[in-house]
Amino acid sequence: MICIFVTGGTFDKTYDEIEGKLSFRGTHLPEMLRLGRSRVAVSIETLMMIDSLDMTDRDRALIVGRCAGCGESRIVITHGTDTMVETAAAIARGVSGKTIVLTGAMIPYAFGSSDGLFNLGSALSFAGVLPPGVYIAMNGQYFVWNRVRKNRETGAFEEQEQG
Amino acid sequence: MICIFVTGGTFDKTYDEIEGKLSFRGTHLPEMLRLGRSRVAVSIETLMMIDSLDMTDRDRALIVGRCAGCGESRIVITHGTDTMVETAAAIARGVSGKTIVLTGAMIPYAFGSSDGLFNLGSALSFAGVLPPGVYIAMNGQYFVWNRVRKNRETGAFEEQEQG
Amino acid sequence: MICIFVTGGTFDKTYDEIEGKLSFRGTHLPEMLRLGRSRVAVSIETLMMIDSLDMTDRDRALIVGRCAGCGESRIVITHGTDTMVETAAAIARGVSGKTIVLTGAMIPYAFGSSDGLFNLGSALSFAGVLPPGVYIAMNGQYFVWNRVRKNRETGAFEEQEQG
Amino acid sequence: MICIFVTGGTFDKTYDEIEGKLSFRGTHLPEMLRLGRSRVAVSIETLMMIDSLDMTDRDRALIVGRCAGCGESRIVITHGTDTMVETAAAIARGVSGKTIVLTGAMIPYAFGSSDGLFNLGSALSFAGVLPPGVYIAMNGQYFVWNRVRKNRETGAFEEQEQG
Repeated sequence: MICIFVTGGTFDKTYDEIEGKLSFRGTHLPEMLRLGRSRVAVSIETLMMIDSLDMTDRDRALIVGRCAGCGESRIVITHGTDTMVETAAAIARGVSGKTIVLTGAMIPYAFGSSDGLFNLGSALSFAGVLPPGVYIAMNGQYFVWNRVRKNRETGAFEEQEQG
Repeated sequence: MICIFVTGGTFDKTYDEIEGKLSFRGTHLPEMLRLGRSRVAVSIETLMMIDSLDMTDRDRALIVGRCAGCGESRIVITHGTDTMVETAAAIARGVSGKTIVLTGAMIPYAFGSSDGLFNLGSALSFAGVLPPGVYIAMNGQYFVWNRVRKNRETGAFEEQEQG
Repeated sequence: MICIFVTGGTFDKTYDEIEGKLSFRGTHLPEMLRLGRSRVAVSIETLMMIDSLDMTDRDRALIVGRCAGCGESRIVITHGTDTMVETAAAIARGVSGKTIVLTGAMIPYAFGSSDGLFNLGSALSFAGVLPPGVYIAMNGQYFVWNRVRKNRETGAFEEQEQG
Repeated sequence: MICIFVTGGTFDKTYDEIEGKLSFRGTHLPEMLRLGRSRVAVSIETLMMIDSLDMTDRDRALIVGRCAGCGESRIVITHGTDTMVETAAAIARGVSGKTIVLTGAMIPYAFGSSDGLFNLGSALSFAGVLPPGVYIAMNGQYFVWNRVRKNRETGAFEEQEQG
C-alpha cells in the first residue's frame, strides 16, 4: 500500500471559468489513477491545496507529521515544483526509514497536455522499489532530496552536487 | 541510457479517417516523451509496428536479437498486451544480465484518455532501478516475466504463481 | 427547440479496450453539448447506433418517419459519413416543410482530436437559421442534399452539380 | 471568403509553464480549423492578443477600422467574453452592410475541454448565412448585438430586451 498525500501545486490547478483564472478545487488524483488504469493499492489524503510558493513552515510541519504518522512505509506526495526541494529537505530532517517520493507537474492535469500523468506513473513506480529515503521524481528521473535543484529558466529538475 | 524498442500494439494504434478503422502509422513515443517532459536519456528504435496477436516466432526472434545485441543494459519495449507475456518469456530465455521492461496500453495514446502515458512513465522508472531481469510494467505495477498473466475478462495484468 | 436524432457513425464510435476494436456504446451527444456549453434547447433521441455502411432501407424508413412525426420543425441528425447523402435523399423525398441538417465526424469524438465538436456547433447553428430543406453540414460548410457528394479519397464533402 | 480577426480572450489563453500562469502566445485558430477539418475559405489576421478587460477605446477603434476596411462582407472576431458586448456595440456604430459575428470561449482551447471549438464551428456557420448585422455567437446561439448581455454569475450570454 502506498499513501498519497496531496498538497496542491500545478498538478491540481484548474481553470475557473467565471473568474477567468487558475484556481484549486478538488484533487484530480482519483481521476488520473483511473485514467492510468492504476492497480497500485493506494490511500489518498488531501493535506492542503495550495501553490507551493505560498507554503509556510507550519504547512511543512503538517506534511512531515503526516509522513511520520501514517502507517505505511511508502509515500508519494504531489507538490508544486517551486518549493518541492525545500519540503523534501524538511521531510528528510523529520522522517526516517520510509521511502518518500515527491512529484508534481509543469502543466496542470486539467489541460489536456500535462506531464502529470507521466510523472504520477513514474513516482508510484519509484515509490514501490526505491530503498528508504526522500526523493524527487520529475521528468522520468529520480533525485535524492539533497542532490537536486529546480532550474528556474528551463523548469527542469537537475542533479546538483551536495553542498 | 535506456533503449526503447517499439513493436506496435494498442499503444501506437491510430484512427485512419479515410478507411474508418484503426491502423498503424509511425510511433507516438517521441511525442509522448515530449508531453511527459521526459529527461531520461533514451534511444528509440521501431522494430515492427504490429498487433501483438499477429506476432510470429520470427518477430520474437528479432526482438530477442536486438535486446541481446544493443549496447545498453536497460531496455523498455512497447508491445501489444495480448501476447506480451509470451514475448517476455522468449526474451528471458534468450537474454541475460539486462533489465528489460515490457509495457503497453489498453487504450491507444491517440485517444485522449490513454493509460499509455502513465505506463510509459512507470516503465522507464522501473527500467532505471530494477536489477537485471525481464519484467512487465502495467497498471503502475511490475511483474517478473514468469509470474504474470493477462486477465482477458478485465484486461488487467495479475500476479500468477509460477507453473 | 431542435430535435437531435442519433444514428451512430464515426461520431459515436468508441474504443472497446477488452476486444481491442472500435464499437458503439451510448451516444456522446449530451457530453459534447455540455463541453460546448450549449444552451440551445434540444431533445436527444437515439434511433439506432450503427455504422452507416450497415444502414438498411428499413433503417432509413425509420429515420424518415421520425423526422416527419416529431413535433419540431428544426432537426439535426448525427450520421456516418459514408451514406449520409443517401439518407439525406430519402428524407428529402419523405419530409417537407422542415429544416433538417445531417452531420457527422471523420474522427470519433472519443479520440481527443475530433472534428465532431466543431461540426456539432456548426450543424446546430445551420439548423437554427436555414429555411426548410434537407442539408448536410460538414467541414464548417452546408450543402443542399442533392448538390453534394463525399470525396472518398480526401474524406471531404464537396459541392456537386445536380444530376 | 470569411475574414477572421483575432483579438485574444480566453479562447487563446495558454499556460506559461515557467511563470506558472496564464498568458498569450500565438493564436490557436489555424490549429482549431485543422482539427475541425474546416473547409471554409478564411483569412486569419491577429489584431491584438489581450484580455478583453484590458481592451481600450483605441483597440476598439482599430477593430472597427479593420472590419470596415477589409474587402470581405462576412467577418468572425474572436474576443474575450467580458467586454464582447461593448465591442459589438462599437462595431455596430461604425460598420454597416456586413455580417459580423463575435465569438469566444469560457475555457481556453489549450485546455482539452474547451467550448472554443464548438463556438468556432457555430460562429463560422452563422457568419455564412445571417444577413448583414453585428452578432454575438456563444453557447450554440446567436444574439443581435443590442439584445444580449453576459450573465456574470453563470458565464452564459442571455437575450436582453433592448434598452
